[in-house]
Amino acid sequence: MMRTRPLKVALLGCGVVGSEVTRIMTTHADDLAARIGAPVELAGIAVRRPDKVREGVPAHLVTTDATALVKRGDIDVVIEVIGGIEPARTLITTAFEHGASVVSANKALVAADGAALHAAAEANGADLYYEAAVAGAIPLVRPLRESLAGDKVNRVLGIVNGTTNFILDKMDSTGAGYSEALDEATALGYAEADPTADVEGFDAAAKAAILAGIAFHTRVTIDDVHREGLTEVTAADIASAKRMGCTVKLLAICERAADGASVTARVHPAMIPLTHPLASVREAYNAVFVEAEAAGQLMFYGPGAGGAPTASAVLGDLVAVCRNKLAGATGPGESAYTRLPVSPMGAVVTRYHISLDVADKPGVLAQVATIFAEHGVSIDTVRQSGKDGEASLVIVTHRAADAALSSTVGALRELDTVRGVASIMRVEGE
Amino acid sequence: MMRTRPLKVALLGCGVVGSEVTRIMTTHADDLAARIGAPVELAGIAVRRPDKVREGVPAHLVTTDATALVKRGDIDVVIEVIGGIEPARTLITTAFEHGASVVSANKALVAADGAALHAAAEANGADLYYEAAVAGAIPLVRPLRESLAGDKVNRVLGIVNGTTNFILDKMDSTGAGYSEALDEATALGYAEADPTADVEGFDAAAKAAILAGIAFHTRVTIDDVHREGLTEVTAADIASAKRMGCTVKLLAICERAADGASVTARVHPAMIPLTHPLASVREAYNAVFVEAEAAGQLMFYGPGAGGAPTASAVLGDLVAVCRNKLAGATGPGESAYTRLPVSPMGAVVTRYHISLDVADKPGVLAQVATIFAEHGVSIDTVRQSGKDGEASLVIVTHRAADAALSSTVGALRELDTVRGVASIMRVEGE
Repeated sequence: MMRTRPLKVALLGCGVVGSEVTRIMTTHADDLAARIGAPVELAGIAVRRPDKVREGVPAHLVTTDATALVKRGDIDVVIEVIGGIEPARTLITTAFEHGASVVSANKALVAADGAALHAAAEANGADLYYEAAVAGAIPLVRPLRESLAGDKVNRVLGIVNGTTNFILDKMDSTGAGYSEALDEATALGYAEADPTADVEGFDAAAKAAILAGIAFHTRVTIDDVHREGLTEVTAADIASAKRMGCTVKLLAICERAADGASVTARVHPAMIPLTHPLASVREAYNAVFVEAEAAGQLMFYGPGAGGAPTASAVLGDLVAVCRNKLAGATGPGESAYTRLPVSPMGAVVTRYHISLDVADKPGVLAQVATIFAEHGVSIDTVRQSGKDGEASLVIVTHRAADAALSSTVGALRELDTVRGVASIMRVEGE
Repeated sequence: MMRTRPLKVALLGCGVVGSEVTRIMTTHADDLAARIGAPVELAGIAVRRPDKVREGVPAHLVTTDATALVKRGDIDVVIEVIGGIEPARTLITTAFEHGASVVSANKALVAADGAALHAAAEANGADLYYEAAVAGAIPLVRPLRESLAGDKVNRVLGIVNGTTNFILDKMDSTGAGYSEALDEATALGYAEADPTADVEGFDAAAKAAILAGIAFHTRVTIDDVHREGLTEVTAADIASAKRMGCTVKLLAICERAADGASVTARVHPAMIPLTHPLASVREAYNAVFVEAEAAGQLMFYGPGAGGAPTASAVLGDLVAVCRNKLAGATGPGESAYTRLPVSPMGAVVTRYHISLDVADKPGVLAQVATIFAEHGVSIDTVRQSGKDGEASLVIVTHRAADAALSSTVGALRELDTVRGVASIMRVEGE
């Protein structure tokens, strides 16, 4: 039985994602209607530059007044694909106040202010869905919020930024340096003109915050996420990883502490063994491991960005939100009941791979080993090599608190016999 | 705001999965309550053998009268983990009639009679959820039903039976024959005493039917699924696959025809390239590729069976169904509006790898090639080898209709110079 009065959708933003949303809503209107149980129609599209030619976008729907659009009162669902904090936040809040539910692809906003947005949705009996905010088309938010709602997630570990994965994949496969690989990513459209959000890890950190909050049923914002980008990863680091049977990936890692009393969330480059499934994630693909108590280890893989994949996630949410509207219900809202605090990076237990340039004379290794022992860090392997009075030590530690590892490195730098710390990288996925 | 009157759950079956469900509902009661918004309690557990000792299962809840349990009238949700067609079907239908929603892990029943069960659920305003019926803990039903509800799925291809993957993985890694690998699977508990459902592909075919129906929004039953088991896969087939840079997997493949007017669903052993992500799925793990128009290629990976993983999927559904109950709504029901017919195997477009034992004399290849040409099947590669008057031809075809490939093989068998068809296997995943 199909309702004939259509559900009305306002689209905020008509760039790469918005125009795909428009295209699919137009070409697949019958399928969407059948799956929702009522027709759904685009009632307005807010853009910044109205005179830009947008193929397939009905000109009479285009407006520059986004605020008036969300205030119309007859809008059932607002799709926000503008990105950034403002005006997106104000528009979403206004939409809730005017009775609309919201589907957003905005990782930055949800990661900065998700709790307030969820509260605004709940106060107005509306839905806030944002599958597209994390890893594009890959279903992750819904599986964590719903499929694993009866399980206990202990760890989320993944590649959630396609740009940086493309860069690291190029460095690994061609031996190129960071700048060269970034140039190629930019030329091919994988990196933006200003790549800061990607290469400094802000994008991945926002996704880590969202995943951690949902996975552990607590509140995590982007400010809680330890963040290191990949701008300092060198061709030498990649080569060194290869010698260890590893590759380097920019990982987002969310973990429940061993005692269960806190969680951590972090983004940084790390070495992972070539045998780990994440090692074979190529180009701009994303992949996320989820470890849960009962389910065991799950992996989700797919395109993490792009107009069509992101639109797929947006429209999946649109169907769900429309169904909820018709049923007079709302889907799962924020679940932050565990109130687990987020511990700082120092509390994370991990392993370090450290390359030191040292003086080539007897006793250096003993000195270095003493520093590790004094900081309670146990050494797994040491590889020593020397030529012409210079020598290098490559040390891989056992698992220890990041704070202990970090202060070990600090103390090593103080040694006269240590001429420099050539690289430090964490080792994960073992 | 938490409701204090608990939702009541009846559990039908308390084997490997049921006892895990009981354990998690007991030990994680607070988490479930927080996520649902109301406490949830086990009100009864129906078993066949009441005197069997079940650790952690409250004895006062155990009954042998499943019918009376589902008829009690105060049950909100019935969890069915008995398996098989009857009495499961009658109990589920009775549960709907008495106001309960149902969570089931029963692939055989859903694949045989899903439409009628969905109709019964809808007639009674109840939910029917069965994430656990396909690939254990791996979220697949929900992503297909909900996450991809705004997209157009064209293909589902995966390893959905852990037992057969374990057997094929052993054959591949050790060179063992089928019987030897089956024995090891049985000894390690990966295969049941009667392995028919797994090794003849019935289990995978049930899952293929469920996945195809959901993916293409049409009705597909297990009888629509072309099914070949792996009992005839030989060590020689595996060795032959290796020479081609392939491995052999038992695949479930659901496809929309190129013209969009029909779908196909099939389960059979197939060669896939070692570079394909499914090739590296080891032991009893499952993995499923989903190809959708907008989303592109997604993969879902994880443990496909086992008590705890299956319980994870059951409990995820339980949380969803309970939330729906509290909201006075139901989740997505059957979606079969496309009414796409299921075409027979002959209509599937695929490639064959064929090994022929032939007479070692001039003109044989010409004869064989003529047969292929007469049936409109184009040959990709031929490898000819001979010794002592005997020769073999290994032929890999281009893509053609399975019916044409099949009649080509029939005609080859008629040739005097073809002494035997040593093996035929489809080639997929390219």
